[in-house]
Amino acid sequence: MTVLAFLDYASVFVFALTGALVASRAQLDLIGFVFIASLTAVGGGTLRDIILNRDTVFWVAHPTYIGVASVAAVLVFFTAHLFESRYRAIVWLDACALAVAVPAGVAVALALGQPPSIVVIMGIITGCSGGLMRDVVCNEVPLVLKQGELYVTCALFGGGAASVALYFELPQPIALLICAGSAFALRAGSIAFGWHLPVYKGFAPRQ
Amino acid sequence: MTVLAFLDYASVFVFALTGALVASRAQLDLIGFVFIASLTAVGGGTLRDIILNRDTVFWVAHPTYIGVASVAAVLVFFTAHLFESRYRAIVWLDACALAVAVPAGVAVALALGQPPSIVVIMGIITGCSGGLMRDVVCNEVPLVLKQGELYVTCALFGGGAASVALYFELPQPIALLICAGSAFALRAGSIAFGWHLPVYKGFAPRQ
Amino acid sequence: MTVLAFLDYASVFVFALTGALVASRAQLDLIGFVFIASLTAVGGGTLRDIILNRDTVFWVAHPTYIGVASVAAVLVFFTAHLFESRYRAIVWLDACALAVAVPAGVAVALALGQPPSIVVIMGIITGCSGGLMRDVVCNEVPLVLKQGELYVTCALFGGGAASVALYFELPQPIALLICAGSAFALRAGSIAFGWHLPVYKGFAPRQ
Repeated sequence: MTVLAFLDYASVFVFALTGALVASRAQLDLIGFVFIASLTAVGGGTLRDIILNRDTVFWVAHPTYIGVASVAAVLVFFTAHLFESRYRAIVWLDACALAVAVPAGVAVALALGQPPSIVVIMGIITGCSGGLMRDVVCNEVPLVLKQGELYVTCALFGGGAASVALYFELPQPIALLICAGSAFALRAGSIAFGWHLPVYKGFAPRQ
Repeated sequence: MTVLAFLDYASVFVFALTGALVASRAQLDLIGFVFIASLTAVGGGTLRDIILNRDTVFWVAHPTYIGVASVAAVLVFFTAHLFESRYRAIVWLDACALAVAVPAGVAVALALGQPPSIVVIMGIITGCSGGLMRDVVCNEVPLVLKQGELYVTCALFGGGAASVALYFELPQPIALLICAGSAFALRAGSIAFGWHLPVYKGFAPRQ
Repeated sequence: MTVLAFLDYASVFVFALTGALVASRAQLDLIGFVFIASLTAVGGGTLRDIILNRDTVFWVAHPTYIGVASVAAVLVFFTAHLFESRYRAIVWLDACALAVAVPAGVAVALALGQPPSIVVIMGIITGCSGGLMRDVVCNEVPLVLKQGELYVTCALFGGGAASVALYFELPQPIALLICAGSAFALRAGSIAFGWHLPVYKGFAPRQ
């Protein structure tokens, strides 16, 4: 299995877990779990593949991805009650998924010979869109819009770190590892310690 | 006209009716009706065609589809007040549209030589995405997420029935008919008699 | 620079301003501004390019577009407090963006040799989708759904005007200018003077 396929499978599995947990909050049935889990799991990569005009969307070429997402959904359906706080579980699992999906997006863009700017943007799209679709469809406040939290910034940071690593001619697997590590570290710091950038403050919030 | 074109036209027309009825609930003007009706009508098939990377999206090849959706929108604009309960009308018309859109998705995937898993998934995407887009844009609770109702399950069941029928070498038009029939029967049973799968119940709904 | 590229750049810049202003209402940080600004700015054109199956999405071919959107986001981040009413600014800038994006969509469809109906529809998609994505993601009431306001109608009117102009064999740049002017005039009239079409009125709004 290539590094790329491994990253795609890992991010599909972990994003599917977060999707299924959101489905548990909406009290759906098992098929609803599988539907939301799959949407979350393959949404970002699908958008990446469509925008980059790849010949075949990754999960159409290998439907096993949907199988992996379904397994994750079933797993959560029968164990979600064991989580003390499902929201906390969603947030942390989502952080892990982000950390794997960003390098997955970066790797595909590199394989297609895209320039650094597109490489970074594909990391962001692959990392952030699946969770965004999950939240929009399930009517949750999108994690990407949470005030005083870093989210898109983490994807940008990961993609940027990978670009710098490649610029200094580190081997690609190392660059992808650095990408995952820095995205996760920043997101974890934001969740655990409240790291954030200054937010816009006008005179009134909804003027 | 091929079976495929007939299915696409029928699902476009009926989904457009549901979109226009939702537009009537949002009290839009005639162009708003046409817009939401078209989005609902061609949304699922467009997603299917883009994901399968067909050369031309079906309604770009034949803009008549948009004409059909527009006619449905105009029709509803002048007659929606005749419905005793517009919500009931939306739900039942949506069930009919689902029953035609699922085989439409299945047929396209078969024509492109996709494996059974992708065939079933394309049935689900074609059947469920248009209505999902309609509900997300109009800020209604998505039908696919209604608790204690079968929706995605009906699409899955229809797609599965078609696959089984094809496995036993029934001719494709028969298989598509079985697909439509089983999807509709299950959805109708869910609406009329409350058929449902067990839903996830944690300790608290939004823990 | 071709007329087409100019239209794309202008609509990207102005739509990005509206996206950043919506981000300011949601009190995001700078990267959040850039994210929402970029989504709004390139969303419509991306959808147009994907549906028309262009070889490369416009901003993947020229990542400068994302740079332009980012500049607009940064600009707004540091100046949004100067606007007396940010909502008014959003609505008027959005009207300008619409007036540039519709001819941008029309021009691409013409360049691909599409028939008049698809040309008009591509004008509508390019003009309306970016703002729609912005509003759905940020959970604002979509401008396209505002009661008693013309929005999709303006895009349709602009696209129709361009088609008529081309039918009478006016040169394309003139037709695109007429397209932009008529879309803007109608939208401005709707905002300033309340021009509207009769809306659907049933017996009860959410029956």
